[in-house]
Amino acid sequence: MNLGWLRSRVAGRLLLAIPALTVACGGGTDADEGSAVRAADPRPNIVILFLDDAGYGDFGYTGNPVIRTPNIDRMAAEGMAFTQFYSASPACTASRYALLTGRLPVRSGFAWVLTPSSPRGIHPDEWTLAEGLREAGYATAAYGKWHLGLPRQYLPLQQGFDEYLGLPYSNDMQPPDWVSLPLIEGNEIIEQDPDQTELTARYTERAIDFIRRHREQPFFLYLPYAMPHLPLHPGAAFAGRSPRGAYGDVIEELDGSVGDILTTLRDEGIAENTLVFFTSDNGPWIIKNEEGGSSGPFRDGKGSTWEGGVREPGIAWWPGTVPAGAIDRTVASTMDLYVTALRLAGQPIPGDRPVDGQDITARLLGSAAAGSARNDGTDARTDAGTDADGRRPLFYYGSGQALHAVRHGRWKLHVKTSSQTGIDYFDGTLPLLFDLEQDPGEKWNLADSHPEVVDELLAIIDAHQEEVIRSGTFFDR
Amino acid sequence: MNLGWLRSRVAGRLLLAIPALTVACGGGTDADEGSAVRAADPRPNIVILFLDDAGYGDFGYTGNPVIRTPNIDRMAAEGMAFTQFYSASPACTASRYALLTGRLPVRSGFAWVLTPSSPRGIHPDEWTLAEGLREAGYATAAYGKWHLGLPRQYLPLQQGFDEYLGLPYSNDMQPPDWVSLPLIEGNEIIEQDPDQTELTARYTERAIDFIRRHREQPFFLYLPYAMPHLPLHPGAAFAGRSPRGAYGDVIEELDGSVGDILTTLRDEGIAENTLVFFTSDNGPWIIKNEEGGSSGPFRDGKGSTWEGGVREPGIAWWPGTVPAGAIDRTVASTMDLYVTALRLAGQPIPGDRPVDGQDITARLLGSAAAGSARNDGTDARTDAGTDADGRRPLFYYGSGQALHAVRHGRWKLHVKTSSQTGIDYFDGTLPLLFDLEQDPGEKWNLADSHPEVVDELLAIIDAHQEEVIRSGTFFDR
Repeated sequence: MNLGWLRSRVAGRLLLAIPALTVACGGGTDADEGSAVRAADPRPNIVILFLDDAGYGDFGYTGNPVIRTPNIDRMAAEGMAFTQFYSASPACTASRYALLTGRLPVRSGFAWVLTPSSPRGIHPDEWTLAEGLREAGYATAAYGKWHLGLPRQYLPLQQGFDEYLGLPYSNDMQPPDWVSLPLIEGNEIIEQDPDQTELTARYTERAIDFIRRHREQPFFLYLPYAMPHLPLHPGAAFAGRSPRGAYGDVIEELDGSVGDILTTLRDEGIAENTLVFFTSDNGPWIIKNEEGGSSGPFRDGKGSTWEGGVREPGIAWWPGTVPAGAIDRTVASTMDLYVTALRLAGQPIPGDRPVDGQDITARLLGSAAAGSARNDGTDARTDAGTDADGRRPLFYYGSGQALHAVRHGRWKLHVKTSSQTGIDYFDGTLPLLFDLEQDPGEKWNLADSHPEVVDELLAIIDAHQEEVIRSGTFFDR
Repeated sequence: MNLGWLRSRVAGRLLLAIPALTVACGGGTDADEGSAVRAADPRPNIVILFLDDAGYGDFGYTGNPVIRTPNIDRMAAEGMAFTQFYSASPACTASRYALLTGRLPVRSGFAWVLTPSSPRGIHPDEWTLAEGLREAGYATAAYGKWHLGLPRQYLPLQQGFDEYLGLPYSNDMQPPDWVSLPLIEGNEIIEQDPDQTELTARYTERAIDFIRRHREQPFFLYLPYAMPHLPLHPGAAFAGRSPRGAYGDVIEELDGSVGDILTTLRDEGIAENTLVFFTSDNGPWIIKNEEGGSSGPFRDGKGSTWEGGVREPGIAWWPGTVPAGAIDRTVASTMDLYVTALRLAGQPIPGDRPVDGQDITARLLGSAAAGSARNDGTDARTDAGTDADGRRPLFYYGSGQALHAVRHGRWKLHVKTSSQTGIDYFDGTLPLLFDLEQDPGEKWNLADSHPEVVDELLAIIDAHQEEVIRSGTFFDR
């Protein structure tokens, strides 16, 4: 493959698409030592820090009264915090599928969680973010929980990653046909039942090593941590430290990892060449009581299509490019990271399949109009997430590939609800309509008073479902 | 009165109590123009910004996903944010009584809310914060909601304030014996039924004027805003701006006021001579649905002794003295502001009556050990609010002077519960025990598994109630 040709095509595309970028990166690299190679390539490194089952309300910057997250708080202060950031699913496998493909999991028949004994995995025809970025000349690595298929053909090395170390599925999965939980390096099991108290540190160490080895080449680093998924295993240095208990210990260790990653990027002089995005795969596992996290102001948690199941923390950090201290209060999702990262790398978005993510580069650069800048007292009211922002509707899928809800602009319509707690908050009433700007906690059903909005959202659902069926899935082919 | 004598006594006391202070203030005044007079008096101005019915979760820095509060967020980033800050009561009058006297409202027989037709008011023998600070040579002013008695002898000018403008009670109170809601200046009604959309702006304007008039003299500025108490009346410049609706508009206007106050202090060169504290009188009025605020992660709201009724936002701001970006995760209350402000002004705390507040000066200076500094990865686990911090137990009173709960260290015991929503969350089970560090949302009753803690807290309640009776109230005298 002729990488030289690709790079020049890419650079041209990049300059056309986001003229501010080259300037911003240039400004950054001036201050860096030894970045001569990188100065010629304005494309940013992409780092995705992906927690497992962390809740919106588990961090200092989102109002947690107990858990200490100074590094994540600082990341938010130095970057852009998203208050309406979504995962594409309230469950592990489906959420990861969407992050790495930019597509709703339903499009590949993936709706929920793979068990270790499943013969299935991410469809080979999916073009993952890692494949796209590797093709663009990026070094790629994943350290952490995979959960997109255990058979070899589905493992990270077959999906675009140069390197992999991690658990292939959730840390609580002890299948009968395995002696114990496997730790995989590349395609090989290197340990059985690894010490889970060391996982966060091991993933972090590998991530730091990867960054140091690639300061002269663009890279994609995907860090899907094992924690705070149960069983909670804080490292020795953090165990028993948080008044919040083991859950707090684990979050505080992850906070330390985030700090170490950002510090490494700074120390290597490539912070200003790197977009780091911090988020979680789904909402907190609230049925686990004090071992689960906090959804903050949102209803319910993991496994549910109430906001608590899919509303995530979201921070974009890219010193010199993403404006410091910015807050974006409009809708975005993990699927947008796929499209945005490929665009930043100069890669085309696949045209032979529906891609549900949207490019949020303009918002990251602070150049989008709606809601992305600090309130300076002058901006007009914005209907965040509406057509004015050019946002597509957001679809909420539950288990069994069932469509539960749609969000369009400020409105969310539930045609089905689900809760791992078993609580039916509205006595079976359906559909339910909520104004998520006025009522982020989904407390006041407005279906009766706004029948025209209900009809509009029902029509959006119908059109979406028709489109999904028409487009087909890879399994139909 | 010999103010010169007082000042020198005061200065000596201050140097003894908080040696870091003079240095810090000196550093600050070096940069200020025209502060020669103030440099000789190291005692800080005291400003209390007191919202009405705002919830813990209504601000950007506490995780609100919609409402824009850049000025309050910046205040938190430049100062110290408290995550376990309490009002002394979930109701208006009692909360204000405690703030201005440092004492539990029960000690004066005040448990709840005064109606406009009540002949009662704050007891003349109370020595208010304004009286204490005025006696120490401070200029004093209150602009906003009083709610400590309507008869003339109870009005602010008779309680230590040099100046007053505001509504004497809540903005929704339309008593039958008044034509309409009165606006009082000094001791006189100057308007009936003032335009409530202008109240925040008018209070802010007066506050700014007061600050400008007193740059050469220490002052106490008490700003008990009318909003976001219902009816919601955003100013014209803010109405219709927030996607959160009128409630958001009102909070965003208050945020603007906070920004204007801090900017004025900076512009006048006295920011480094001024301790500003931002908080609210009680939790949000959640039964008002979208017109009420958010308790964030806490249960219930205004009127309830669940955490949502009394857990408040709390920010201390004092550039050059209170460390920037600090987070204090230990217990504090509005009654502590009374003691702390008097101490900072060199005033003795009354010795002839129980005072329930405690001095938090060391914590404000960042010199207290427990939980007040950012987590730098080195501090050991602290049981916030326990005896280790030297904290007294915290008592929660509901209506009718009934003691509902006690907090000691991490533990909260409810011997009674109350909710304006009418929800009995635990089916009448009592007592209920919660670990507020592990479980800020009061979800998991641990009374059965921790009988020894229940007994300990019951004993604390018994001792407290005996002490209250023994001490008597002013009404007994």
